[in-house]
Amino acid sequence: MVYISASTGQLIKAVLFDTFGTVVDWRTGVARDVAAFAERHRLVDLDAWAFTDAWRAKYDPSMDPIRNGTREFVPLDALHRESLISTLAEFGLDPADYDEELADLTAAWERLDPWDDSVAGLAQLGRQVIIGPLSNGNLALLLRMALRAALPWAVIIGSDVIQAYKPTPQAYRKAVHLLRLDPGEVMLAAAHNHDLAAAQRVGLATAFIPRPTEFGPGQTKDLAPEGDWDLVCSSIVDLARHFS
Amino acid sequence: MVYISASTGQLIKAVLFDTFGTVVDWRTGVARDVAAFAERHRLVDLDAWAFTDAWRAKYDPSMDPIRNGTREFVPLDALHRESLISTLAEFGLDPADYDEELADLTAAWERLDPWDDSVAGLAQLGRQVIIGPLSNGNLALLLRMALRAALPWAVIIGSDVIQAYKPTPQAYRKAVHLLRLDPGEVMLAAAHNHDLAAAQRVGLATAFIPRPTEFGPGQTKDLAPEGDWDLVCSSIVDLARHFS
Repeated sequence: MVYISASTGQLIKAVLFDTFGTVVDWRTGVARDVAAFAERHRLVDLDAWAFTDAWRAKYDPSMDPIRNGTREFVPLDALHRESLISTLAEFGLDPADYDEELADLTAAWERLDPWDDSVAGLAQLGRQVIIGPLSNGNLALLLRMALRAALPWAVIIGSDVIQAYKPTPQAYRKAVHLLRLDPGEVMLAAAHNHDLAAAQRVGLATAFIPRPTEFGPGQTKDLAPEGDWDLVCSSIVDLARHFS
Repeated sequence: MVYISASTGQLIKAVLFDTFGTVVDWRTGVARDVAAFAERHRLVDLDAWAFTDAWRAKYDPSMDPIRNGTREFVPLDALHRESLISTLAEFGLDPADYDEELADLTAAWERLDPWDDSVAGLAQLGRQVIIGPLSNGNLALLLRMALRAALPWAVIIGSDVIQAYKPTPQAYRKAVHLLRLDPGEVMLAAAHNHDLAAAQRVGLATAFIPRPTEFGPGQTKDLAPEGDWDLVCSSIVDLARHFS
């Protein structure tokens, strides 16, 4: 079966996914690696959840200078590492003491488990349309994440390939262009309303998949749709049903 | 099992493939679509094999101005279309008469069948290492080729992503960089000695897989290895044996 977007009026040929939070559970995965790091170094007072949340709090701000053009593009790996260094300092640790481990701990962001529905949903959807990430992650990160988590992407376009971070319009436009499709033939699936809003502004179709525990048990944002999205789905399996 | 390259001394983590000729049989596939085009237009005198060979003869020359910096990068789709237009003229046909079909006939280059061993060999190899094309094809072309031919790439890096055509050193270097690997951890597998020589010059490991009928029954070049390659293999299945 085919799916025609009500908002774009076009047949959807590709569904691209926000990845951190929409396809994989970054909070549990990163906290697991932070806890192992703390245990190795006998940092008994280090709260792995609090450390993870503090590290993640630097994620969006770290991309802002690149989004607004005051800093040249650097891959997300490098930003994650910079944010890790300042988070260690915030928690009273000297980053120099852990220099040899920083690259490996930074790679926690590629050792993330998919949500329960992700692999089955992507496999179903991938039989009908082109599927791939549209993520702020760089290609090497997304590739290793996909191999570890068995995400069956047809194509991986990293933010380093595009040289722009979402929600910059160019991040969506260049992915569409590389796929040789029209914006209206591409759907973004995401757990974040602001990401969908940016995609919609450049003409993409949209699917909202809320992930109410992405930020932990006390999450308050992105619990409900805040825009006129083509689809609101309970899971990627639910999304795939609209295409098969 | 792991494979350590004798030439680079490193564990091979990715095997990248030349695509046209090494993984897929472009001559048979393109000639099939040219023959169908000729039949639709009752061009009874059009020799589909001769037309295909003439079109392919413009392939390398079309990239030369981009390789030597006298022309800005344009994707292979655009070069294939320009070469098609001049081939039609060479064969006494007015390209303007076929304007609406040029895009579809150009896309013959993504409707190519794999050699008999390709899919099985790639599937085996893909369980051990990262596999992907390292081709002069653009991402959209390689993606559609992969979906149609069921090529199980882990990642697709198009020449438009890299903005360089092989054998320019940057074409190999940038692919390695995007994968976050060292050159010596990457192997190029190709049916063409000059491609392997260029990869070797920038530090990659090499595997030669001769395809003695790629250019038809009278092929005279690339029948035997002409360099000191890590491996000389009779097929991609044979190559995969070294990794499993």
